[in-house]
Formats: sequence, structure tokens, C-alpha cells
Amino acid sequence: MTAINKEDIPKNFGLLVFPTFQALDAFGPMDILNMLSRDFPLNLSIIAQTLEPVSTKQRDPSLNPFGSNFGESVVPTHDFNNAPPLDVLIIPGGYGVRADDLDPLFDFVRRTYPSLKYLLTVCSGSWIAAQAGILDGKRATSNKNAWASTKKVGPNVKWVSHARWVVDGNIWTASGVSAGIDATLAFVEHVYGADQAKKLARELEYEWHQDPSWDPFAEMYNLPKEE
Amino acid sequence: MTAINKEDIPKNFGLLVFPTFQALDAFGPMDILNMLSRDFPLNLSIIAQTLEPVSTKQRDPSLNPFGSNFGESVVPTHDFNNAPPLDVLIIPGGYGVRADDLDPLFDFVRRTYPSLKYLLTVCSGSWIAAQAGILDGKRATSNKNAWASTKKVGPNVKWVSHARWVVDGNIWTASGVSAGIDATLAFVEHVYGADQAKKLARELEYEWHQDPSWDPFAEMYNLPKEE
Repeated sequence: MTAINKEDIPKNFGLLVFPTFQALDAFGPMDILNMLSRDFPLNLSIIAQTLEPVSTKQRDPSLNPFGSNFGESVVPTHDFNNAPPLDVLIIPGGYGVRADDLDPLFDFVRRTYPSLKYLLTVCSGSWIAAQAGILDGKRATSNKNAWASTKKVGPNVKWVSHARWVVDGNIWTASGVSAGIDATLAFVEHVYGADQAKKLARELEYEWHQDPSWDPFAEMYNLPKEE
Repeated sequence: MTAINKEDIPKNFGLLVFPTFQALDAFGPMDILNMLSRDFPLNLSIIAQTLEPVSTKQRDPSLNPFGSNFGESVVPTHDFNNAPPLDVLIIPGGYGVRADDLDPLFDFVRRTYPSLKYLLTVCSGSWIAAQAGILDGKRATSNKNAWASTKKVGPNVKWVSHARWVVDGNIWTASGVSAGIDATLAFVEHVYGADQAKKLARELEYEWHQDPSWDPFAEMYNLPKEE
């Protein structure tokens, strides 16, 4: 039923959150895994710098020019000091990755990565992995809306410009926002089997893009083919 | 720029949450609206029976056979007694709609609907609207995985079996889970204009299904064409 050995099946997932994370970067993968947890014994830790609720709201007033009061807060279960051992860490992106006070978050990712079975980033979540230093020399992708910035953030990363998602070793990096849904379904297929992934896509009524090279958005943003 | 008169543009949104709501039902639409709130002055209230965080976790142990500890909690901003006036109410679905203690939630929807500009339901969120009595005689849809139950829950609703989403008057009902993303983009197109919706779909790197009759999932579940 599963694509890998039973003892290697990951059980303990972590979701990293930080102020002004992108909601769908996190909740696309989470919704898939929430449903998967009915069929496999899975645990989730939601990890942030403190246990205070973490909001998607803009921190930077210049990005909220109309003074909107719009966002959702999620409740962390652990902070960087008491997070349990993890098999899989999921890092969403969002405007918050541009903040200048993320060193504790980079430190957490840097010291957590060596014991992970898998790391999954969505959108500019790859900026966090890059700044933690763990993408150096690896193939990876990110959202297509800020490609020039992505390259600056990770000068030693082999960034792939045309990709829905990229797998290098145990690191899965998805392109922008909704690409996290496709990458997570592909991850489920890899780890828990194709039937499981197909069942989840059907239950989510989601037209799953199964080809990691499918990327009309790279073309929309006129990105040269490079990696 | 917008598709409707400026004074009719909705500003005040509400998201209804309840235990064991489906994460993506809520956060697909929310992510789109979070981004829209950079371009329009929008406010969000997250409304629940109490101000305690509300989790996606299974309430029903029989639906958690492996004892998983997996879910995310969001923080309500208002309860049913202090919610502010709303222009748009969004109701997600999820296993929680099957609970037998939802009368206060039905009451809230019933008394809130008359002053709304728009109601949007996703997936079995339409069960809540149906049980509040506000879908009677109206065309509506729901997820395709539990169609027989949908028909029982709303015997006086004109359920449309093959539809990504359905609009009847000011009520927008989306099919299962990810259909909420397509319906919300169509709603943004209707209210805020096609350019705005296209921009958001591109930024979300989401392949938007713009045809409300697109529904391969109704076929997967072998639903007869009916409404």
C-alpha cells in the first residue's frame, strides 16, 4: 500500500509559523495531512517563536495601504525551545519572510533539519530554508512572483525557475501558494502510496497537477528557463 | 475597475467556524481575501460560538481510528452574540457539520442572513445554510462525496449535482473543499472586477476554473445530472 518501508513512514509533522505567513501555503498542505491522519497515525506540532497566536495580518503598514483589518490567527502548540522531535517540517512562505528579525527561526530550521526525514517548503518558505543555509548546492524552487529576490536570498542555491515543485534528496520545495497542494499530494504519493494521494485529491475535489515541470506561472512572469 | 457600484462593495466579512471545520474550505477563500485586503479596505471577523480557539481536529473518535493528534486551531474574534454587522458571511464545511449541537450556529446564520449582501458556503457549509432554512427553494450545491446526505439535509433545496459552484440571488454555494477557491475567485470577479480576480489567481499560482459547470468530481462519484 505504501511506497516506502513501513518503519520509515513519517508520523510526527511540524508546521512552522511566523507573523504574516501566507494562509494557503500552510493550510493547503495541512488540509491534505488532516485528512491523511484519518488513515495513518500522525501527530502535528505547530511551532512558532512563542506560544502566542500567530496572524497572517500584514506586519508592514506599507503593505496595508487601505488600513484593512483582515487576517487569521493560528495557535502554536510549541515554541522553538520545546518542539518535539519531528519527521517532517513544513515551512510556508508569505510577506513575513522579508522581516529582519527571523534569526531565531533560521536557527530553529538549521538545528532541526539534520534529524528530519523530510523538509517541505511552500512559496517563499524556501527563503527561510535558504537563509538557514540548508539549500546551499541543492536544487530548489520558490514562487514566481519574486524570482529576482529569491535568487538574491539564496545565492548558492540551484534555483529552478520552471517547476511546480522540486525534490532534491529529502527536501521538497514548492512554487507559489497553491503549488503547495500539488507538492503535498506528490509527497503523499511518494510516502503513503498513489492510491492514498488519489483518494485525497478526489475528496478535496482538487484537480491535482501531477507533473512537477508543469508551470504556466513561470511563463506568465517571463522567467528564463534556468536552474 | 469594479463590476458593481462602488457603494455596494462589501467591506465587512465574517468567517464562521465550528469544531472540526475543514481547513481548506475556510483558508482557500481566506487566502484570496487576505490578498484582496491589500487593494480594498476590508475587515474580517472570525465568528464562533465562544471565543475559545476552534480546531479542525475530529470531535468524533470513530473518525480518528488511529488516534492521530493532528489539527489546527484558529482564534475567533467574535461570538454569536457580539458579531458586528456583516456584508459577507463565509461558511466552511467539514465533518463538524454532522454534529447534533449546532442549533446556536443555525440560529446565528438565520438571523444574520437578511442583512448580508452575500452569503458564500463551501463544501458541506451548505448543510448549515440549508439547516438554517435559507436555501429552501433555491438552487445550491455541496461536495460530491456525500450527495445522498446533502439531499436529506436540505429536502426543499434545489440541489445541483454537477456544478463547481452555483449562484442563486446573493447566495454562492461551492462544491467540495478546493471548489471554494474557484467560487471565491468568481465572487471577486463579480464584485471587484475581472482584472483583480486574474491578478489574485496569478499571485496564488492557481489554475482557476472559471466555468461554474466544470465538475469532473460529480462524474467520479457517478452522480446523476439533476437540479
